[in-house]
Amino acid sequence: MRPLFVHGWLTGAVTVRSTSPKDPTGIGSTPRHAGAPVPIAAPGTVQLPETKGYRLKKRILGQPMANERLKHERLGKPTALAIFASDNLSSSAYATEEILHVLIPAIGIFAFSLVVPVTGAMLVVLFFLILSYRETIKEYPSAGGAYVVTRDNFGLGVAKIAGASLLTDYILTVAVSVSAGTAALASAFEFFDPYRVEIAVGFIVIVAYLNMRGVKEAGAIFRVPTYFFMLMMFALLGIGAYRYFFGSMEIANQAGSLLEEYGEFGKEGVLGPFLYGATLFAVLHAFASGGAAVTGVEAISNGVPAFRQPEWKNARHTLVVMGSLLGVMFLGLSMLAAHLKVSPFEGGTPTVISQIGRLVFGDSLAGDVGFFALQAGTMLILVLAANTAYADFPRLGAFMAEDGFTPRQLIRRGHRLVYSNGIILLSVTAMILVIATGAEVTRLIPLYAIGVFLGFTLSQAGMVKHHQRKREAGWQRGVVINGFGCFLSALVCMVLAVTKFRDGAWIILVALPILVVAIDRLHRQYRREQLTLEDEVLTAAASKILRRHLVLVFINKIDASTARAIQYARTLAPDELRAVHVASDPDQARRLAERWSTLALSRIPLELIECSDRRVTRAALEYVVGETGDQQTEVTVIMPQRVYRRFWHKLIHDRSADRMTDVLGVLPHVNVTMIPFHVSSAAANQVKVVTTSHQDSQ
Amino acid sequence: MRPLFVHGWLTGAVTVRSTSPKDPTGIGSTPRHAGAPVPIAAPGTVQLPETKGYRLKKRILGQPMANERLKHERLGKPTALAIFASDNLSSSAYATEEILHVLIPAIGIFAFSLVVPVTGAMLVVLFFLILSYRETIKEYPSAGGAYVVTRDNFGLGVAKIAGASLLTDYILTVAVSVSAGTAALASAFEFFDPYRVEIAVGFIVIVAYLNMRGVKEAGAIFRVPTYFFMLMMFALLGIGAYRYFFGSMEIANQAGSLLEEYGEFGKEGVLGPFLYGATLFAVLHAFASGGAAVTGVEAISNGVPAFRQPEWKNARHTLVVMGSLLGVMFLGLSMLAAHLKVSPFEGGTPTVISQIGRLVFGDSLAGDVGFFALQAGTMLILVLAANTAYADFPRLGAFMAEDGFTPRQLIRRGHRLVYSNGIILLSVTAMILVIATGAEVTRLIPLYAIGVFLGFTLSQAGMVKHHQRKREAGWQRGVVINGFGCFLSALVCMVLAVTKFRDGAWIILVALPILVVAIDRLHRQYRREQLTLEDEVLTAAASKILRRHLVLVFINKIDASTARAIQYARTLAPDELRAVHVASDPDQARRLAERWSTLALSRIPLELIECSDRRVTRAALEYVVGETGDQQTEVTVIMPQRVYRRFWHKLIHDRSADRMTDVLGVLPHVNVTMIPFHVSSAAANQVKVVTTSHQDSQ
Repeated sequence: MRPLFVHGWLTGAVTVRSTSPKDPTGIGSTPRHAGAPVPIAAPGTVQLPETKGYRLKKRILGQPMANERLKHERLGKPTALAIFASDNLSSSAYATEEILHVLIPAIGIFAFSLVVPVTGAMLVVLFFLILSYRETIKEYPSAGGAYVVTRDNFGLGVAKIAGASLLTDYILTVAVSVSAGTAALASAFEFFDPYRVEIAVGFIVIVAYLNMRGVKEAGAIFRVPTYFFMLMMFALLGIGAYRYFFGSMEIANQAGSLLEEYGEFGKEGVLGPFLYGATLFAVLHAFASGGAAVTGVEAISNGVPAFRQPEWKNARHTLVVMGSLLGVMFLGLSMLAAHLKVSPFEGGTPTVISQIGRLVFGDSLAGDVGFFALQAGTMLILVLAANTAYADFPRLGAFMAEDGFTPRQLIRRGHRLVYSNGIILLSVTAMILVIATGAEVTRLIPLYAIGVFLGFTLSQAGMVKHHQRKREAGWQRGVVINGFGCFLSALVCMVLAVTKFRDGAWIILVALPILVVAIDRLHRQYRREQLTLEDEVLTAAASKILRRHLVLVFINKIDASTARAIQYARTLAPDELRAVHVASDPDQARRLAERWSTLALSRIPLELIECSDRRVTRAALEYVVGETGDQQTEVTVIMPQRVYRRFWHKLIHDRSADRMTDVLGVLPHVNVTMIPFHVSSAAANQVKVVTTSHQDSQ
Repeated sequence: MRPLFVHGWLTGAVTVRSTSPKDPTGIGSTPRHAGAPVPIAAPGTVQLPETKGYRLKKRILGQPMANERLKHERLGKPTALAIFASDNLSSSAYATEEILHVLIPAIGIFAFSLVVPVTGAMLVVLFFLILSYRETIKEYPSAGGAYVVTRDNFGLGVAKIAGASLLTDYILTVAVSVSAGTAALASAFEFFDPYRVEIAVGFIVIVAYLNMRGVKEAGAIFRVPTYFFMLMMFALLGIGAYRYFFGSMEIANQAGSLLEEYGEFGKEGVLGPFLYGATLFAVLHAFASGGAAVTGVEAISNGVPAFRQPEWKNARHTLVVMGSLLGVMFLGLSMLAAHLKVSPFEGGTPTVISQIGRLVFGDSLAGDVGFFALQAGTMLILVLAANTAYADFPRLGAFMAEDGFTPRQLIRRGHRLVYSNGIILLSVTAMILVIATGAEVTRLIPLYAIGVFLGFTLSQAGMVKHHQRKREAGWQRGVVINGFGCFLSALVCMVLAVTKFRDGAWIILVALPILVVAIDRLHRQYRREQLTLEDEVLTAAASKILRRHLVLVFINKIDASTARAIQYARTLAPDELRAVHVASDPDQARRLAERWSTLALSRIPLELIECSDRRVTRAALEYVVGETGDQQTEVTVIMPQRVYRRFWHKLIHDRSADRMTDVLGVLPHVNVTMIPFHVSSAAANQVKVVTTSHQDSQ
């Protein structure tokens, strides 16, 4: 529970204080540094009242989670399957449709002969990917996504390409999934069709909210729909198979569909199918579209540490189950689509799977129930598939941030121990994509999958190298498996880039290098900021003090806040103490100097800086720079600062002191201290404290 | 030239430093405080390179003006007339039109019989106002606007009403003048008619710019158009009189004018003129509209200090000249309008004065030249009349700010010694009015004048009281003059409020009290902030230091910036020095503590504040509050701060240190010092400085 001091590293120089409200005694009473001259109020026991904002946050997100609970947030296999597989399994809901969407305009009804072979080809790819990732999970049980594997084997240079492609694809996963989920809803109820963008954005908000509350609870919510979807899919495939063999089904009504639009023989007319080159391109293009089906395979390998122990075995098992489920669903749907001659529609609704459901379940009341249940299950798993990306994107973002590849803010865990900043970043970018494409799956698909397969390729190449270096038992087998996986992924990647270039893949081919360059610049910037020093140099630098300590109290008027500032300045026991006034208004300066002369504050000299051009900040800057010219003077600039509670109070005051603070604060060996003075009902109190302390310490 | 130290108040405790570039030797070499332990680089001689922004400012606004030049910015009488009279004189360009604009819809052609009597009545008011203000200028030669007179005689409570009404009216002066100027332009060239709002806003920008450059130069620019307008007006009146007596002129073409629109007998038909009550109301209403003519009379009394010496005599003389000129022009124009039966148009163009010009100058080539010259002169003086407000509004704003009635920022003089903030405030509010009314004079007039006459009334009442109190030679005569002026002004004020209530005067009657309340709140806020203390209390408070000085160095990592912060902390020679880390990430905290243990920085203890809910700022706050609980501890919190040069560099870093600074900075007796560390190419240098100084001071 309290890992900070059960470990053995606690030496004499380090003390641990607890401010945790649950343990007010804590360790606040541990022996304190011997040099403390006076007894002080028991530290560590102060509890301040909660702010309104924080109470609201707790109401929305739930009780805060302590760091100690981090380890407990592990997932059992059924929950892990629901979380990590939803992306992969839900792809079956649109993969067949995307294949037909390419084939039908090109070759008309011949598409129905080719959809199953194309599906089969993609399943071969899936099979080898599963094999490959089994290796990855075993070899990288702690964090085995493409990013880590690439980094370990090829270094940061290649890893950032893998990282960039994965981040891009997580964003696309969210966009595609919620768009497809919205299409499922709109296929069941036409009423929703005009509001698809709004609904998709709403779905993103819901998923983001659930994830902000924490991954485990989110898992519990997602388990039900994932398994419900599986149930409905197997009902669909089972009944479909039964009626195929023992009954009969109607053929789809293709009025208004792509098939009607492009004609029975596709764009090229009756000659289309015989134009060998065109057909080959169409098939490859369709194959590339089907590639969307296998996205999400890598999700489990990214999330191995979230599994219960033994993590890698559980993860591996879950991976195989997931792959098998996907294979059956994808193939089954493609076969039914081919048999029922289901054609997609322009714009995406009604979806292919909804048409299949209509035909398989039939027109009876029971059929209606089955149809709507299927649509509900499809919609839910698709929307929640976005959750896979929510489980992985923030984690990968934090990983990369630790290497200095993404902004540091992604490392911070939020209120409920999740990487809140990553969740927000993912949600916002996905929303932009959804809005830009009008939530149409077909317009998003060409952007998708390239990054995924690039990640696959790099990851498998990394695994090959890993086996060669490590030479563990049976490493040769690993080389063959991962080598072939790498080859296949690279092939698919190239097919994707070529066949979908004009449809939108070019956007990714342009954006990825830009993202990589941005990551690179960020990385170099972070490295430039590394201020690490050798122990001896650091100790020496910290131990030495400059020859002279000059304290300058900047004053603009002589009042209680000035008195407070001078009081503090004396506390510092400087070598030299001066009051300084920048005389932008000669009359004011004269009055100030007159009052100062009468005060006789133990002969603290007042210096007036002439400033006839009224550039107060600049005059102060030149004055202070003049004092530090010898490189032997440490200057403390003391700024009496009025603190205003309300915005309009700030508005009615000159902010030149703030500006001066900003400008002086960046000079080397110039240290600006703000002495706050509360301008409010407390003002009188503060003065009282000041004078009281005076009497007390006499 | 150097008023700061030619005066006798310079005592031993006060030193003057010059940073003026023109005098680099300055006084930087005066004897310094004896306590300085080491020789330092000659202070006061540092000159930093100029920033780009400042060079641009100089190019736009001209060379900066030093405080010493303030006295030299005085105006000769011809220039003063041009500056202060343009508002008043230019009113003649629209006053006749506004009278007709009320009379014609009400009583049709009978308006032409009544316009001259109404004008005459207003001239009577003008006569007594001039008499009254002659008194004011004599009695208040330093700053004799309604605000100061009211304040001196009735106190701040009444003065803020006068101030509020004057500020409002200066804004309206700008809006009305540029709108009327735009109408003059659009009367000459119909082409500009659709762009009146844009042109009016453009005029405001030009006048504001000229004023930002400084009042004297602006005066030089304005002299020509003011005198040109006078010339053209007297040409118009002279030729008009000549042709009236010795020649003939055509009657105006009233097609499309208000006269045609409302018919020969006005809205009430033939009975209108005989409905006694309605006619009386119409006449009073017209009289109220004519009141706009005498606005600007008070301008000179507000600006007496801008005159050359003897100020009050020059100002008084200028006032009489101005009043006489206005009287002649206003009356002449009304007589010509009556004779030529000129009717205004809905929307304001062509203006009455332009129609008169057309008819008087005739249709010849010479007539065309005369017409366009008259329009040009009218336009120029109207646009530049806005300048009166620019001369007065910022000055009054600064006056009131010194009494705590307007935001303090209005006191500050800008680059060219003008009150830049006042100029900006005036311009922005006037632009809003112009845009809101579509730059139509007739829609602005009902808002106008009420505030002016309210100011007149208060000011004259103040003068009556002043005479009674002061009892100077001939004070009884002063009481009579100012008393009658006060009575007349109050009468006009009431007529204005009643007859123009529905047209828009209600806006002012609502806005003025709100403004007064706002001024009042502002004033109370400023008074609440007065932290003045008695000399003894102040000295005592400043002299005493608390029993214990605790220095806390907040660290997040151990690097060069940490070393720098600890170096500085040692400079302060505290009673107790601690390093503090808020452990929001247990792993990071562990690594930090381990490294700390190996460093042995002269046994500075490191305290880890447990913070399992990751609310770093709050944990730090509770920790520090715990330390100050005894009221005897002065805490200095030292924040190693990285300084980033570029915006995107700031973006990629966690800002929690900044937030912590903000929160801790407001605790009593907690003083936050930021230790800047430049993260850039200079970083290496800074470390070098640190280590060099170490070797040097060995």
